[in-house]
Amino acid sequence: MSLKEKLFKQLEDNEDRMIQIRRHLHENPELSFKEEKTAQFIEEFYRDKEVSITTNVGNGNGIIVEIEGGAGEGPTLGLRADFDALPIVEEADVEFKSKNEGVMHACGHDGHTAYLLILGEALIDLKDEWKGKIKLIHQHAEEEPPGGAKSIVASGILDDLDEVYGIHLFPTIDVGDITVCAEEAMTGRSNFELKIQGSGGHGAMPHTTNDALVAGGYFVTTAQTIVSRRMNPNDSVVVSITAFDAPGGYNVIQDSVTLRGTVRYLSMDNQEPIYEEMERLVKGLEVTYGVECTLDYVYDYPVLYNTPEIIDEIEETLSESAGSYFEKVYRDKPQAASEDFAYYLQEKPGAFIFVGAKPEGVENAYPNHHPKFEVNEKSLIISAKAMADIILKKIQ
Amino acid sequence: MSLKEKLFKQLEDNEDRMIQIRRHLHENPELSFKEEKTAQFIEEFYRDKEVSITTNVGNGNGIIVEIEGGAGEGPTLGLRADFDALPIVEEADVEFKSKNEGVMHACGHDGHTAYLLILGEALIDLKDEWKGKIKLIHQHAEEEPPGGAKSIVASGILDDLDEVYGIHLFPTIDVGDITVCAEEAMTGRSNFELKIQGSGGHGAMPHTTNDALVAGGYFVTTAQTIVSRRMNPNDSVVVSITAFDAPGGYNVIQDSVTLRGTVRYLSMDNQEPIYEEMERLVKGLEVTYGVECTLDYVYDYPVLYNTPEIIDEIEETLSESAGSYFEKVYRDKPQAASEDFAYYLQEKPGAFIFVGAKPEGVENAYPNHHPKFEVNEKSLIISAKAMADIILKKIQ
Amino acid sequence: MSLKEKLFKQLEDNEDRMIQIRRHLHENPELSFKEEKTAQFIEEFYRDKEVSITTNVGNGNGIIVEIEGGAGEGPTLGLRADFDALPIVEEADVEFKSKNEGVMHACGHDGHTAYLLILGEALIDLKDEWKGKIKLIHQHAEEEPPGGAKSIVASGILDDLDEVYGIHLFPTIDVGDITVCAEEAMTGRSNFELKIQGSGGHGAMPHTTNDALVAGGYFVTTAQTIVSRRMNPNDSVVVSITAFDAPGGYNVIQDSVTLRGTVRYLSMDNQEPIYEEMERLVKGLEVTYGVECTLDYVYDYPVLYNTPEIIDEIEETLSESAGSYFEKVYRDKPQAASEDFAYYLQEKPGAFIFVGAKPEGVENAYPNHHPKFEVNEKSLIISAKAMADIILKKIQ
Amino acid sequence: MSLKEKLFKQLEDNEDRMIQIRRHLHENPELSFKEEKTAQFIEEFYRDKEVSITTNVGNGNGIIVEIEGGAGEGPTLGLRADFDALPIVEEADVEFKSKNEGVMHACGHDGHTAYLLILGEALIDLKDEWKGKIKLIHQHAEEEPPGGAKSIVASGILDDLDEVYGIHLFPTIDVGDITVCAEEAMTGRSNFELKIQGSGGHGAMPHTTNDALVAGGYFVTTAQTIVSRRMNPNDSVVVSITAFDAPGGYNVIQDSVTLRGTVRYLSMDNQEPIYEEMERLVKGLEVTYGVECTLDYVYDYPVLYNTPEIIDEIEETLSESAGSYFEKVYRDKPQAASEDFAYYLQEKPGAFIFVGAKPEGVENAYPNHHPKFEVNEKSLIISAKAMADIILKKIQ
Repeated sequence: MSLKEKLFKQLEDNEDRMIQIRRHLHENPELSFKEEKTAQFIEEFYRDKEVSITTNVGNGNGIIVEIEGGAGEGPTLGLRADFDALPIVEEADVEFKSKNEGVMHACGHDGHTAYLLILGEALIDLKDEWKGKIKLIHQHAEEEPPGGAKSIVASGILDDLDEVYGIHLFPTIDVGDITVCAEEAMTGRSNFELKIQGSGGHGAMPHTTNDALVAGGYFVTTAQTIVSRRMNPNDSVVVSITAFDAPGGYNVIQDSVTLRGTVRYLSMDNQEPIYEEMERLVKGLEVTYGVECTLDYVYDYPVLYNTPEIIDEIEETLSESAGSYFEKVYRDKPQAASEDFAYYLQEKPGAFIFVGAKPEGVENAYPNHHPKFEVNEKSLIISAKAMADIILKKIQ
Repeated sequence: MSLKEKLFKQLEDNEDRMIQIRRHLHENPELSFKEEKTAQFIEEFYRDKEVSITTNVGNGNGIIVEIEGGAGEGPTLGLRADFDALPIVEEADVEFKSKNEGVMHACGHDGHTAYLLILGEALIDLKDEWKGKIKLIHQHAEEEPPGGAKSIVASGILDDLDEVYGIHLFPTIDVGDITVCAEEAMTGRSNFELKIQGSGGHGAMPHTTNDALVAGGYFVTTAQTIVSRRMNPNDSVVVSITAFDAPGGYNVIQDSVTLRGTVRYLSMDNQEPIYEEMERLVKGLEVTYGVECTLDYVYDYPVLYNTPEIIDEIEETLSESAGSYFEKVYRDKPQAASEDFAYYLQEKPGAFIFVGAKPEGVENAYPNHHPKFEVNEKSLIISAKAMADIILKKIQ
Repeated sequence: MSLKEKLFKQLEDNEDRMIQIRRHLHENPELSFKEEKTAQFIEEFYRDKEVSITTNVGNGNGIIVEIEGGAGEGPTLGLRADFDALPIVEEADVEFKSKNEGVMHACGHDGHTAYLLILGEALIDLKDEWKGKIKLIHQHAEEEPPGGAKSIVASGILDDLDEVYGIHLFPTIDVGDITVCAEEAMTGRSNFELKIQGSGGHGAMPHTTNDALVAGGYFVTTAQTIVSRRMNPNDSVVVSITAFDAPGGYNVIQDSVTLRGTVRYLSMDNQEPIYEEMERLVKGLEVTYGVECTLDYVYDYPVLYNTPEIIDEIEETLSESAGSYFEKVYRDKPQAASEDFAYYLQEKPGAFIFVGAKPEGVENAYPNHHPKFEVNEKSLIISAKAMADIILKKIQ
Repeated sequence: MSLKEKLFKQLEDNEDRMIQIRRHLHENPELSFKEEKTAQFIEEFYRDKEVSITTNVGNGNGIIVEIEGGAGEGPTLGLRADFDALPIVEEADVEFKSKNEGVMHACGHDGHTAYLLILGEALIDLKDEWKGKIKLIHQHAEEEPPGGAKSIVASGILDDLDEVYGIHLFPTIDVGDITVCAEEAMTGRSNFELKIQGSGGHGAMPHTTNDALVAGGYFVTTAQTIVSRRMNPNDSVVVSITAFDAPGGYNVIQDSVTLRGTVRYLSMDNQEPIYEEMERLVKGLEVTYGVECTLDYVYDYPVLYNTPEIIDEIEETLSESAGSYFEKVYRDKPQAASEDFAYYLQEKPGAFIFVGAKPEGVENAYPNHHPKFEVNEKSLIISAKAMADIILKKIQ
């Protein structure tokens, strides 16, 4: 029996446990930076196993599990699964619904963790048969900027990695399918908050005021030109204004209003130019309306860049397996969402790939972050095997 | 001693009481439609006096006090003072500060009521010496639409009035000055709430949403054209958007947003056309952005129309007294604010005039509705005498 | 026979000539600053009459005719009629249609001149019977800024005037009616031209350009806020953008665009603030869109201010005559249009009044400056008599 | 000597003639659909050669030259060169400057034609040595929609083609470089003209008008949302408004205004949705401003789609030759411009590739359609050889 066969067999034998772990985590979700019980659960899992564990890595509950292969020199690979949940009231109709009202694993991180635990265990059990080193990265706080990844990278604990890998489950992709995207694969993100300070007054006397709300309204229209006129049409750029915070009654012209928004881009070359455009629009707003603006603009998760050669390798590897434990692998367009896995890929070659998790018999699955989000649990064993498939090429 | 001399003497003798009453009311403000203790206080005041009192008039705590003159046939005059307070946390530095945290007499209604009580008392005491009938209208709920006046008028209790009079205190007018304005003297008001229903989604995927916030932003800019292009430049019209209610974080495109605003006009001829313009803009918004809009548009207090002949009479009467108990009377531009006294004037001839109440030694007094609003209490006796002056012409 | 009776008789006897003169002028219209034949015609008219004539007054073809009354000391009065025409292709269906294609007396100046010539003649013929002095001001170039009035005033030739009077015909007022307006009676005007310089390029590559047309479009929307938010709602203010000069095909993003517009106000206090608002918006445009703007902003004709006492006098005088040679006189709202008669009134007391000239049997007459503009010629004798009526009070 | 060697030798021997032909065409440019002399010149060129010529193909001066290979059965290939010029006043400093003032070969079509004539001649001379058939497509009217290609395709004369090839010269690409782009390689285009009919009037009386210019200004701002909110950020879409035709003076509010613009997209899937968005915005404009709109919207040249397998073949072929007659071949992003070569590719497999033509010693070359546009004539022989290289794989 080849190493791959042994590994796959162990994964298959433990599929039920994998699902149980996932359901346990699903029932007990914890918010980003507050995932103490989850971290404890993971730590417990590895107790008494022949690995070295580092906890409280980075700016939170991150855990790095290091497994030394016994078959000689080889590469050091990082495999990452995130484990935080979202501030969402679960509406999915499942037996193992969240017991932590208002918190929900609506992004599949429970599944990520479950597959990696079982895969990790198998790699530990079979470690004499592979070479090199594997670092399991159980990452906290993916959902809440500044995220956990950046600080884990900064801690230096991954400096010795040769390559880094990760998987994300998507119920919007058919179960059985795996998609890959070379180079820019998920958007970079900046967030901003703009406070416009005018001077308020009586609704009947606009000329005695300086109407911050009106300035804000015009800003909304002007901000459209960043995408429509200033950016290269070949580049994927989004500027969304997601909050216009100016509650009030009928009689008083607002003193100040606050807008919030998010900016997305598929090329890091756009990160700064968009900020410069925004800054210019805000200065223009000040001059035009005589208001004072405070723009709080933060470069958040970078563009996620998959090493193209590694995507080629993965595509080749998975193509060979297609039709066995999963249906097919194909190249897809970049994802609109952002991910702090991008920080690992800024430092090391590697890949972040997408595993289909569409529930059975569903046409349009609820997307990630939806209160009715559900994953097809068949995607767990597929993830574990696919990741095994990919790394075996490196460590065998 | 003439009736006027007697009346004035009694008012002077009771100036201190007038001020005490005003301070008592100031310390115990009550919100519109909840002025139970205030109404009780007023009722108490007239107890054991030879008048007929009707309480709970209209849609709230209104009180009508009827005084029959003993000197023969004459006109029936209504004198109105309002007595409700505002939901404002008082910041004025006065000894008799509001004891009812969050509620404040910031519009001078305490003063209105105080002067009318003392004037009413004097008119009762001297009723054998004048002819006709006087109805003291102690009105509730001026500050909160639909207001008290409309329902008092609707009750029919004022059907027999020949004329109706009222005074408003303004600290923005020098104490000692009285201003009058013939015809349109205070603006009419409509209020609106506009809900824009789009469909929300991920901030990175605008094309999968229908962005209600963006539609709202463009609406703010479009709404400016009502005043700038559609209304006669000779007409005074205001459209203020006073709320843009779309709170939120950085990541989610809003499902729906709610705007609120106020509309003002000095001619009732504009009331409907402005609504029609607004309705058209809202329909245009629906078509342009594919959103669904709910426009809740309410015609509120009408334009306050002072009978020009009565303003002429008042100006003449007061001009004769100018230099005695007050400095001067003059014609002024209309006030931007709205008043439900307008409802009385829609039914009966009459006038609503403005008495200066600027505090001593102040250059720019805090305007009505300001948390630091204060009135110069000298304005109370001036109000009482001015009103006496005006009506004595009719009932002597 | 009183002087008035004599004067009126002579006017009546010459009504046909007055109409012939008007028709002659109508057939031979000349553009502002080019009214040479018209000026010659007027000069001819006074030749051999006992008056002193000054020609080429001001910056063009202005003519001042001075008549010395023979009945003693009295005031010096100015009576003004303008005589230039407009660059309009006449579409009115009249026998005496313009022979000068593309030029038309579409503002009644032919009528103004005709009545003043005949009235002037009568005043000359009867000059022994009145006192004081009369200066007939036959003014060129009312229609084309900077106009003729300003330079005539600047010439000093009217420095000795005590009062100045003028009439304008309006077919939108019923023939037989005369309207007066005290104080601000016609708007002041500023004109502007805004050049927005961006950088052009290929229509498919907006990001390589700086789109001046888009900046211009947003400016149009922003400019609405001057009236809607910055000016006192009680003040009458208009900002109209009357040209957006950016012709072109389908493929090229514009390098620069030019906008033009007009600004109106009924208070000179607004003249400068509106300019300041506009200047701020233009600076804001430069900052917001990174364009370079050239704003050419000209304060043009001032607000026309009628001396209120003189309007009172005129109203009284004309009220006495109402029902005889005309129907009625009434006070009306200010006119939206602008007039360089305002320059005379900046220097001297006086009045500019409006004489109804609606054609017979017409419901909605074509307004001034319309290609189908027509005046009812009955308005000529009414104008002559009304002006006579008014000045006789002063010189008899 | 191989066929390729013979072919290349003949091309080299005729390089000077190729350049002379190009210069002759450059001196004698003709506008689209008016290229009579150019067509005659081409026809002359093939006279007395053993080919069949069809003239006046399609909706203009198109010429199809058919060459039958003598070496047996083989594919039928189309090679296309366009020959019309642009309405541009040449500012380039060349000896062979346009003699036809106001018309200029500013897009390299002179070079396209010159290389294809000389290549065609060589293919004719050597026709016994290759198999299959070649159709030389000398196309008129590429620059002026609806273009020549569509009608040539419609004529059926190319129905028997197996594949179709074309080259475009770009001075913005280094001479010596050839770029290719698989699949969507040039944008599709729609053009529109929008007439907004309001009702005009006096600049001082906006409320009596319906201001079409203001509606147009708001439309410019609203139109930005098509790209910024409605289209998938991953899709390349441009909406440029290229004309705002509303000339005028200072006094008259415009009756109607006309806007023009161009729309670009890299996926035909976007063609219709963008139109639908535009149509909705225009309907919204009508409702919002009460104007009447006429939208003339034309689907113009489609997205140019290069057959990916053929691009792979070409890249392979040219990579083998790189370093010999040219430097290098590489894959590039799609071009923003549009091309009616797209119509051929809608019917047949094929490729349209880009040959560098940057003048010597120039950093930033003037782009196509610029009055100072110049091509490096070394690009002619490169084009001829590259095209020979490519087709020899098929016909040898």
